[in-house]
Amino acid sequence: MPRTVAHQLIASHLVDGELSPGEEIALAVDQTLTQDATGTLVMQELEALGLDRTQAEVSVQYVDHNLLQTDEKNAEDHAFLRSAAQRYGIWFSKPGNGVSHPTHMQRFGRPGTTMVGSDSHTCAAGSLGMLAIGVGGLEVAMAIAGRPLRIRMPEIWGVRLTGELPPWVSAKDVVLEMLRRHTVRGGVGRIIEYHGPGLAGLTAMDRHVIANMGAELGATTTVFPADDAVRDFLRAEGREDDFTELRAEDGARYDVHDEIDLSALEPLIARPSAPDDVVPVREVAGEPVSQVVVGSSANPGLRDFAVTAAMVRGRQTDAAVSFDVNPTSREILEDLTRMGATFDLIAAGARIHQAGCMGCIGMGQAPAVGQNSLRTFPRNFPGRSGTEEDSVWLCSPETAAAAALTGRIGDPRDVAAEHDIPAPRLALPEQASVNTAMLVPPLPVEQAREVELARGPNISALPDFPPLPDRIEAPVLLKAGDNVSTDEISPAGAQALPYRSNVPKLADFTFTRIDPGYPERAREVRDGSGHLVVGGENYGQGSSREHAAITPRYLGLRAVLARSYARIHWQNLANFGILPLEFAEPGDYDRIGTGDVLVLDGVREALESGDRITARNASRDEEYPVRHSLSPRQVRAVLHGGQIPLLAAEG
Amino acid sequence: MPRTVAHQLIASHLVDGELSPGEEIALAVDQTLTQDATGTLVMQELEALGLDRTQAEVSVQYVDHNLLQTDEKNAEDHAFLRSAAQRYGIWFSKPGNGVSHPTHMQRFGRPGTTMVGSDSHTCAAGSLGMLAIGVGGLEVAMAIAGRPLRIRMPEIWGVRLTGELPPWVSAKDVVLEMLRRHTVRGGVGRIIEYHGPGLAGLTAMDRHVIANMGAELGATTTVFPADDAVRDFLRAEGREDDFTELRAEDGARYDVHDEIDLSALEPLIARPSAPDDVVPVREVAGEPVSQVVVGSSANPGLRDFAVTAAMVRGRQTDAAVSFDVNPTSREILEDLTRMGATFDLIAAGARIHQAGCMGCIGMGQAPAVGQNSLRTFPRNFPGRSGTEEDSVWLCSPETAAAAALTGRIGDPRDVAAEHDIPAPRLALPEQASVNTAMLVPPLPVEQAREVELARGPNISALPDFPPLPDRIEAPVLLKAGDNVSTDEISPAGAQALPYRSNVPKLADFTFTRIDPGYPERAREVRDGSGHLVVGGENYGQGSSREHAAITPRYLGLRAVLARSYARIHWQNLANFGILPLEFAEPGDYDRIGTGDVLVLDGVREALESGDRITARNASRDEEYPVRHSLSPRQVRAVLHGGQIPLLAAEG
Repeated sequence: MPRTVAHQLIASHLVDGELSPGEEIALAVDQTLTQDATGTLVMQELEALGLDRTQAEVSVQYVDHNLLQTDEKNAEDHAFLRSAAQRYGIWFSKPGNGVSHPTHMQRFGRPGTTMVGSDSHTCAAGSLGMLAIGVGGLEVAMAIAGRPLRIRMPEIWGVRLTGELPPWVSAKDVVLEMLRRHTVRGGVGRIIEYHGPGLAGLTAMDRHVIANMGAELGATTTVFPADDAVRDFLRAEGREDDFTELRAEDGARYDVHDEIDLSALEPLIARPSAPDDVVPVREVAGEPVSQVVVGSSANPGLRDFAVTAAMVRGRQTDAAVSFDVNPTSREILEDLTRMGATFDLIAAGARIHQAGCMGCIGMGQAPAVGQNSLRTFPRNFPGRSGTEEDSVWLCSPETAAAAALTGRIGDPRDVAAEHDIPAPRLALPEQASVNTAMLVPPLPVEQAREVELARGPNISALPDFPPLPDRIEAPVLLKAGDNVSTDEISPAGAQALPYRSNVPKLADFTFTRIDPGYPERAREVRDGSGHLVVGGENYGQGSSREHAAITPRYLGLRAVLARSYARIHWQNLANFGILPLEFAEPGDYDRIGTGDVLVLDGVREALESGDRITARNASRDEEYPVRHSLSPRQVRAVLHGGQIPLLAAEG
Repeated sequence: MPRTVAHQLIASHLVDGELSPGEEIALAVDQTLTQDATGTLVMQELEALGLDRTQAEVSVQYVDHNLLQTDEKNAEDHAFLRSAAQRYGIWFSKPGNGVSHPTHMQRFGRPGTTMVGSDSHTCAAGSLGMLAIGVGGLEVAMAIAGRPLRIRMPEIWGVRLTGELPPWVSAKDVVLEMLRRHTVRGGVGRIIEYHGPGLAGLTAMDRHVIANMGAELGATTTVFPADDAVRDFLRAEGREDDFTELRAEDGARYDVHDEIDLSALEPLIARPSAPDDVVPVREVAGEPVSQVVVGSSANPGLRDFAVTAAMVRGRQTDAAVSFDVNPTSREILEDLTRMGATFDLIAAGARIHQAGCMGCIGMGQAPAVGQNSLRTFPRNFPGRSGTEEDSVWLCSPETAAAAALTGRIGDPRDVAAEHDIPAPRLALPEQASVNTAMLVPPLPVEQAREVELARGPNISALPDFPPLPDRIEAPVLLKAGDNVSTDEISPAGAQALPYRSNVPKLADFTFTRIDPGYPERAREVRDGSGHLVVGGENYGQGSSREHAAITPRYLGLRAVLARSYARIHWQNLANFGILPLEFAEPGDYDRIGTGDVLVLDGVREALESGDRITARNASRDEEYPVRHSLSPRQVRAVLHGGQIPLLAAEG
């Protein structure tokens, strides 16, 4: 049977399992990606696993999140990561070299390979015809240790693109259209595969934009074929030798279908504070704007900055607007500077920041309360900007630049007409400014073995994870609504992020975005029965941070009962010994109140035997049937208290 | 009698007093400068004074300190400052436009004028033949309200420059030589006036470097003549019309003399953690370096960045070094970019940050504990970097760039010889990229009156300041050593700075760098007798922040007993009603212990009558004669509880 790109990628890396949706499969992993906010734990996990050297073809540790260095903690993390990368044979991308996803694409991405990354936007590498999946840090640690990735075989969702994008409409609008149609849950359990004649007009970096925000759709990943656009990209990066063609075979069949006529798209924008609250820009035109930020892995390409620069060239941004530009890599800033666009941005009033994630992860650039901030970022979950009552919108660089010029939201087509701005014709360089000097290569193995980890006072050890008890009798300390993100479970931002290597300190931030009293209440019952959390649909969407499992676990969380889970967080819960249960009757969610004491009796035995599990609400004298979707291996992990104790037990 | 430049500037602005050292004089003020970390209080003081519109020829509010925006507080401060600037007829320099001192020099500096600024490095404008004095915020508020500046007439210290700087030696080395010779107290009570044939080789921006760090010498200010170098500078800025020649008259006599042969200088460096612990770079060559930062008002010129870029051009910075570049203004970044130097810096591995003070004020860029950081900054007081146990060195851009390339401290002459780096020949543009679009001009008065202040939740009101009691009986809560800086009294940095508009919150940081328990102990006795602080020599050196007086006052500080004071802090103490006393017998300092209860009886009467004041140590049954140097007006202010209640009482 003719195969899709996704099927070919899976088949060529299949270690175990069948390609039927829902079945567990095991895949060999070629490459691994870690960034600093999740990487410090990965390195500690490698230590716990007793690793000598990475077993992946390429492993890269990026430093792109914790760049503000408001005290010594960031610099200590950087030193720790550098030493750990050297110890384990991992590439080290220095602070300032760039955001992991575009940088990886430029230097390491290779069609036909697989990758796991401890960052939810790892899927961006699907732009090159890779199968790249964002997972929790422990999954990456296990891949570095040479173990295959185990996932449930997703459905393959073919999205056929036709037509060509009109002027002032760009790749960001394509993925915003997907979010408008399908919401943040539309991609759950699926790989999105774009195909069709519309691909011809999309460069590899355009595809990166679309693949990157597959994470916001909840998809397992996104793939594109490796075609001429990918060859052109690799040639510009001086890596044409790394090109392999990879296309869907003629007549390949997809499990699910959709189609987008690119020529019919218009500029779109996601309203505060959800990536899927998408409307045409014209519908919200006129709203005042106090901040515009261009950058992030969702619009990382030279083209995205160049189009912004072309629009503001020779003009001045509005006096009331802070216009912030975050170059996504050193290479792109070099290219931008070489072509004169950096000058144009500065002259128009841009604040040029260091290359990195910056405000996208709440590291600076926090807007004033209630003031509109337009960003080319992938996410606008409440408070993620660093401001509790923020008002963050997501849009294309064209829409962002238009707002920077006028101080108001406006459709770039209308703003261009009003201000006589010609549609940008970009002359991008054929060769990128390839420069690997901020990428420190792995040490030879003998030298690597002599490296000692530079463990500063902020690098805590991993906590202990005792096994699951057979009887759980514990209060529900928190009842969350639908689509709660890992940003709400374990916040990023300038206050919390520096503690990503320090679980006991970071635990004090757990759930505080939605319930400031949670950490204290949890600590009160921590040494007794622990506690439970109840969640709605798509519980734990967003970032891949395993801290959203480890810190509640550290505070005594034993099980979550939710209507449904986001994939990565569900996996992280199991990895760290928290039992992720689903309501068999979704309506039971409504019957539980905060403070209710639930009893799960004989739960170890039920997990081992596959028997049904019932949660008894001792406060209301009710019973709720619950179930789980764990694989046998995940069940063993949960019973042992998590993957690390399981691996230790297996020796 | 032929007059010095300083004498001419003073005479042309004299409102009251005699030009004899030590006498109080009153000077008309032409220009005012405020930055955001001190400006929010100044604006609140203008409100308290009931001001309608600035009475100065030019008033400018800069935003250069609080740029990280780790939460909503910074953005709220910016909005407040913007509204207040509009209300009071003040220019507003947007975030990203640049550091106040070089930006002011580029756009507003004018030979022959006077300026006060609520920033200790305001003296940098002396480079243009201005009399520019850093003072507390309230002094600036009073100048904005049209009142003259009252100071004690300083001695004029003539420093004759001869010869020409050798290659690899630059302006920073001149002022480091001054600090090596004269320490951080060398300039106290003096205006430094540079003269002599060596001036011919120093551009206006070179002079800025030297004038700026007059603050570190403790000088009232620094002045240079307005000669051809100043004319050239103003011409390049498109402001030749603002030039007026101002030179010392032939045969002018200085109160104090020194001479530096520029051709005999070598590269110098200040060791951690004092700006005057200066040694030749060769003496400390070989020390490993983990961070190099170029920027700040101490090396703000195009030339300083261009020489750095020329040295690293086509080379790579050391793999273990973070090489951070902080452009000092939008204009300089434009020029650097236009001449290709931005590209060279990026290609060599620089992290290019937004234009502003950044790490110089502890806003980010904190190094790891104990790791050497080389900076072209003016100050390296302990902990100012944001890292408690930091190891910060101060040097020229040449010495910084050499360390960035090699990862070790090295004399740039030696590094250049070893790495075949030719002495940079810079071709700086004759015309600067003048661009005023980020400078928001004052509103016309009728429109200004309609502006409402945008007061966010973080902008507190000024606290009340009750009058001085006649009897003070209070414990000494803290005994400080010599040269304690205002950074130790009220820290800057990313944690504290966002609270600069919020006195009650900021008070929790008071003195915590040297005694973490101080705020709590002070709060315990605050509503009773209050407390006292004992200081050594040069108490309160460094930054002009009046927060170092207001927050201890808020916590109940009634009087300080010190061996001697730094000028600005001494003035701030009096402005906010804290009695600054000096030991008549310096040895008495040693007789007082922390916790001793001191009694000052009949202190109001003694101040009013000019009688001697005695401090009785009730814990040890000893007496110490003390004195003050307050002017009659300052005495009245202290009796009333501070300048603000005094002005209110005067109506």
